[in-house]
Amino acid sequence: MITGMNCMIAESAKIGENVSIGNHVCIQEDVVIGDNSIICDGVIICAGSEIGADAYIDFGAIIRENVKLGKHAFVGARCILGEYLMDFIENRDTQKHETVIGDEAIIRSETIIYGANTIGDYFQTGHRVTIREKSRIGRNVRIGTLSDIQGDCEIGNYVNMHSNVHIGMKSTIKNYVWIFPYVVLTNDPNPPSEQLLGVTVEEYAVIATGTVVLPGMTVGQDSLVGAGAIVNKNVNEGKVVVGNPMRELGDVVNIKNKTTGEPCYPWRYHFDRGMPWKGIGFEEWNK
Amino acid sequence: MITGMNCMIAESAKIGENVSIGNHVCIQEDVVIGDNSIICDGVIICAGSEIGADAYIDFGAIIRENVKLGKHAFVGARCILGEYLMDFIENRDTQKHETVIGDEAIIRSETIIYGANTIGDYFQTGHRVTIREKSRIGRNVRIGTLSDIQGDCEIGNYVNMHSNVHIGMKSTIKNYVWIFPYVVLTNDPNPPSEQLLGVTVEEYAVIATGTVVLPGMTVGQDSLVGAGAIVNKNVNEGKVVVGNPMRELGDVVNIKNKTTGEPCYPWRYHFDRGMPWKGIGFEEWNK
Amino acid sequence: MITGMNCMIAESAKIGENVSIGNHVCIQEDVVIGDNSIICDGVIICAGSEIGADAYIDFGAIIRENVKLGKHAFVGARCILGEYLMDFIENRDTQKHETVIGDEAIIRSETIIYGANTIGDYFQTGHRVTIREKSRIGRNVRIGTLSDIQGDCEIGNYVNMHSNVHIGMKSTIKNYVWIFPYVVLTNDPNPPSEQLLGVTVEEYAVIATGTVVLPGMTVGQDSLVGAGAIVNKNVNEGKVVVGNPMRELGDVVNIKNKTTGEPCYPWRYHFDRGMPWKGIGFEEWNK
Repeated sequence: MITGMNCMIAESAKIGENVSIGNHVCIQEDVVIGDNSIICDGVIICAGSEIGADAYIDFGAIIRENVKLGKHAFVGARCILGEYLMDFIENRDTQKHETVIGDEAIIRSETIIYGANTIGDYFQTGHRVTIREKSRIGRNVRIGTLSDIQGDCEIGNYVNMHSNVHIGMKSTIKNYVWIFPYVVLTNDPNPPSEQLLGVTVEEYAVIATGTVVLPGMTVGQDSLVGAGAIVNKNVNEGKVVVGNPMRELGDVVNIKNKTTGEPCYPWRYHFDRGMPWKGIGFEEWNK
Repeated sequence: MITGMNCMIAESAKIGENVSIGNHVCIQEDVVIGDNSIICDGVIICAGSEIGADAYIDFGAIIRENVKLGKHAFVGARCILGEYLMDFIENRDTQKHETVIGDEAIIRSETIIYGANTIGDYFQTGHRVTIREKSRIGRNVRIGTLSDIQGDCEIGNYVNMHSNVHIGMKSTIKNYVWIFPYVVLTNDPNPPSEQLLGVTVEEYAVIATGTVVLPGMTVGQDSLVGAGAIVNKNVNEGKVVVGNPMRELGDVVNIKNKTTGEPCYPWRYHFDRGMPWKGIGFEEWNK
Repeated sequence: MITGMNCMIAESAKIGENVSIGNHVCIQEDVVIGDNSIICDGVIICAGSEIGADAYIDFGAIIRENVKLGKHAFVGARCILGEYLMDFIENRDTQKHETVIGDEAIIRSETIIYGANTIGDYFQTGHRVTIREKSRIGRNVRIGTLSDIQGDCEIGNYVNMHSNVHIGMKSTIKNYVWIFPYVVLTNDPNPPSEQLLGVTVEEYAVIATGTVVLPGMTVGQDSLVGAGAIVNKNVNEGKVVVGNPMRELGDVVNIKNKTTGEPCYPWRYHFDRGMPWKGIGFEEWNK
């Protein structure tokens, strides 16, 4: 272990082999840090957190109590993992909720992830993402810069959210969904009310930029919601919808790429970057 | 007083009884900190600022000069209170503007509040809120994650803004208003111009997700602006409007909850969470 | 040189005359800091970076490797300049890309600017701006709070972007363009696809609040896109467009200010704040 100046490292912390620790670092009681990890200047790791091997924790990141971070994680500068819930603000007691993040995470700088979240392997975020408490997020999920997941959400595997997406509480997003910038999934049918009707987005659906999905709506499998739509009705499987008010344009299978003239939807037959069928094609993989 | 390592605390600072101070904390001249406060690692409190009793100032918060923070405040990690105005950037002199925040504030992490703001009791923010200079904000106001109040605004009491709301300069928001995500109140009628025509939102109005209100428009009392509307005309009292271009749909009193069939507007007769008529009903309270 | 407590300053760093350095500051190998600069508490300046004379680097800013910052810069609290690209995250090697920012920059707090960017003189940002890698940005450009420039963009001189603007990869924004809050320039014609068709915005164009410009579209010179438009066709030179779906309303020269009755477009003949024709008028300046 190499340590910089002015560090405070609790005696009960278990620091692995070949770990490098910068200046002004605080590591509290019972923290575990895996082998070969790099902990940069000003990082704070609170009691009971566990960092897997080969981590890179950049300048000034705050890892609060009871965070379990898998191996080979990159945590960007000034991220906050295990952010306090309301119970801490009220009682100023210890952060009691556990935050679990799988292996191979890339969490870009200034992202805030609350306690009481469970997130799978190969998780990626842009900058300044906010993830409130009590969501379950699958594996290979990517969430773009400034996106805000409001908590109590179910997010599947291989879900891609671009920048500045707002996912209201109680949303359900199934596997292989794409959500583009400035999309909002809402949840209050008569705001302000006590009712929360989350949106459901089915597998392989695509929601393009600037769309608002109204409370309780379902966006069907393989469907495409065009930019700027106000989704005030359910979107049927395999359909294209656009506009404010929303109207159905037809079937996604009829959409052609304007340059090549080739069909491009359902996208799963035409696109494979980052997908489990990469290089083999969806049909072959799906057998 | 308990103090961590490597702190710099000015001799002229007045630290109350039973205050706990973390590591790497800087407290400058003439700072006052009330009894029982907790000041976490890396906090900077600049000259002349006053923190009420029972404060919790989380990791790395920056409280600039001349901030007056009421009692029992929670200031999240890396907030900046009393942020510099343009005069500081130009002159690099001291922050001279006073920032006043009432009692019982909950200011979540990474929020930036400029100098020259006056904010009432029971103020709450989400994360990464930005509040520019010279606004007057009433009591029991809540402003959601990523919202951006551009300055020179009048905001009443019991105003609720959800995440990612943008309030242009010179806006007037009266008491008991609700503004939902991705709403923008604009102010320049012929952009770019030197004219600033702020929006006025009257009491009990509700503006739903993704709405843009054009410069100088008034959103009437008890009215409801549906999601994604482009408000290019005044919204009359008690009316529902939707769409781009905007059209009036009728009276809010005719809106029924789809699940229960019951009327839900004006909301003040049907909803009381966080409101002064909580538990007694609006009509009884209003007598 | 005045230095606070607990600083680490590499011997090979070249610190100019009359430089003031706060507490807990780290200055790495071969850093150059110009005369009369002020480096506040907790700043980290990484190897090989050069800061021009008369800089003010506020609390906790991180200046990574190979940043060249011109003279008289203001860098707000907790900015990150020279942020890591994906190659660093993968290899955890040194940041190798150069970041060049001209003279007289004002970069407000918590802004993140990636490595491999070149930015001209008199650059200004609001708070929490994100600028991804490999863009070329001209002189006198201003980018508002929370805006997100996704990289690989060409941005001319005297471009003004207001708060919360999202500029997709491969966008081209020419000189003297105005973009207002919550505008998104997109780039993927059939999302998700491997095709990137950037938007082009011609000189003197104005794009008002809440507009989405679809992939590959051109917004013509002197044109005006009204608030909330979904730009799914090219916008012709000097035309006004509005709506979802977009429709052309006529010529910008016919727009009158509602208060004064005077024409206000093309704006370059009626507005000069911050422009090179300030005080002399566009026609005189253009000769």
